[in-house]
Amino acid sequence: MIVDAQERRVLNGHTTLKTRTNKERLETVLHAIETRMHDVVDSDVDVLRDASRHIIGAGGKRIRPRLLVLAYMATGGSDADVTVDPAAAVELVHTASVVHDDINDHGILRRGRPSVNKLWGRTFALLAGDFLFTKVYELMAPFGDMNVVLSEATVALVEGETMQAAAVKDSNFTREVYTEIIARKTAALFRSAAEIGARMADAATAQIEALRGFGFNIGLAFQIVDDILDIVGDEASLGKTAHLDVQQGRGFAVAHGEGGDVMDSIKRRMLEGDTLEAARVQARMLVEHAVAMLDVLPDSDAKNELIALAYSTIERTA
Amino acid sequence: MIVDAQERRVLNGHTTLKTRTNKERLETVLHAIETRMHDVVDSDVDVLRDASRHIIGAGGKRIRPRLLVLAYMATGGSDADVTVDPAAAVELVHTASVVHDDINDHGILRRGRPSVNKLWGRTFALLAGDFLFTKVYELMAPFGDMNVVLSEATVALVEGETMQAAAVKDSNFTREVYTEIIARKTAALFRSAAEIGARMADAATAQIEALRGFGFNIGLAFQIVDDILDIVGDEASLGKTAHLDVQQGRGFAVAHGEGGDVMDSIKRRMLEGDTLEAARVQARMLVEHAVAMLDVLPDSDAKNELIALAYSTIERTA
Repeated sequence: MIVDAQERRVLNGHTTLKTRTNKERLETVLHAIETRMHDVVDSDVDVLRDASRHIIGAGGKRIRPRLLVLAYMATGGSDADVTVDPAAAVELVHTASVVHDDINDHGILRRGRPSVNKLWGRTFALLAGDFLFTKVYELMAPFGDMNVVLSEATVALVEGETMQAAAVKDSNFTREVYTEIIARKTAALFRSAAEIGARMADAATAQIEALRGFGFNIGLAFQIVDDILDIVGDEASLGKTAHLDVQQGRGFAVAHGEGGDVMDSIKRRMLEGDTLEAARVQARMLVEHAVAMLDVLPDSDAKNELIALAYSTIERTA
Repeated sequence: MIVDAQERRVLNGHTTLKTRTNKERLETVLHAIETRMHDVVDSDVDVLRDASRHIIGAGGKRIRPRLLVLAYMATGGSDADVTVDPAAAVELVHTASVVHDDINDHGILRRGRPSVNKLWGRTFALLAGDFLFTKVYELMAPFGDMNVVLSEATVALVEGETMQAAAVKDSNFTREVYTEIIARKTAALFRSAAEIGARMADAATAQIEALRGFGFNIGLAFQIVDDILDIVGDEASLGKTAHLDVQQGRGFAVAHGEGGDVMDSIKRRMLEGDTLEAARVQARMLVEHAVAMLDVLPDSDAKNELIALAYSTIERTA
């Protein structure tokens, strides 16, 4: 029996060739997604190109495009290059909403850089966000039915952002309202990313449903942890203006408070010490629930990466 | 020879049955488009539903959806109902841009009503505009290749709006810049409306090209007349905050001025008296050029309506 260097690594229990190749393939696709986002926002209108590349180039966790690509690979998709444009589109939906969010919240720091709003002003930030939304549309235009999936999520995202602004305005931030807000503003887009990946791989209905549920639940967990970090984090590690949520009377801490002065209520709750811990427990349960849903998928490197991605949403400090 | 009442009307030179039926069909479809726009913005998020219906219910000329439906009918399309969703989408692209425009321009009056910005404030106006954009996406999602056409136009629209804001900021409002701005912010959407109508009717390439050119040229004319009316009109007849363009240093009058104080320059030009007249002449030439392009279409009621629509862009006072 001839054993070459690569097979020997397998036999020795090291990373398998298959694993290494799949990891390389994933990284190659993720890199192509970065390039696609950078390229698609090119424009002879300098401010749109520059503002878009400023926010895209600042990075971000890229969890949504990674989710889409992994959902594709984990359900048998064999040519991950086909996911580049939809994955770029999903990340740009998020990016557009971030740019508009920073206008409404007066956020001046985002991903460790000054926000588009801060650098270019409100008028151009509004237009840059619109531009990013139109680029989502351009990227997705050739993808037929996938547009139905993504359009649902973008509608939900804007509804969630609006419910949040309305809840702050009306001082109506109950636990139920909080859950509905994060379901729409965050979890719906995670769900659509996972669904698009699975559908593009022509996955069976049960697998598509599993990935929808997986995406939705880790989306909820991700947002809960985001809100925890907004309270306990500082700007240096978060890379964005911290405590905005609390100052503006939203996020789960407010949802668990009793009204009255927002900061006072939150501080009191935090001193009592159970709110953050309860939120952490809830996020972990959502992730475990999500991971259990993947049982319908055959074992694969991509499935393992999905599980790792799920836990990464709660095991982070920024 | 048996001559019934309907044929007799034809022989007597009155409106033909065919004409009457086609007009009724057009009005039925336009009514269905209104209903579709009203229905598609339904949401349990009250402010999004209410703000959307406020601006949609205020009316507007509906020239873009009318153009789309007529392009369909004039190129042989036989079931105009299929145009309802794309036509509603095209009008909502315009509506979304109007809502965001009123934020950036501090417009307080729109279509004879207080602007969304004025009634709901900046945060909700921004989100309502985003919501309308997502509803465009939802309406168009099932329409395959048509999304490529409309996404191009929405990108151009945002680019045009941004070029305008940048030109004002940089005091760089030359005639060339003005032409490029109106081509993108207005004419591109007119062009896409006409193209979508023709494509949905499976029109021949030459007809599609003719309708693209027709739409583009009447779009340019429409915007030039809009800018004329912004100078000579008053708020009561315009139904929107007048003189915004001039105050903010944009529009063709500024493009023909010599820099320096914007209002002074424009007033001086107007007193000299040739700028408005030159713009009117240009708009008429564009419309005549557009109408000539329709020569490739067979004669029909819809073609006649397209010609009437073309002239309506320059023969209006609001």
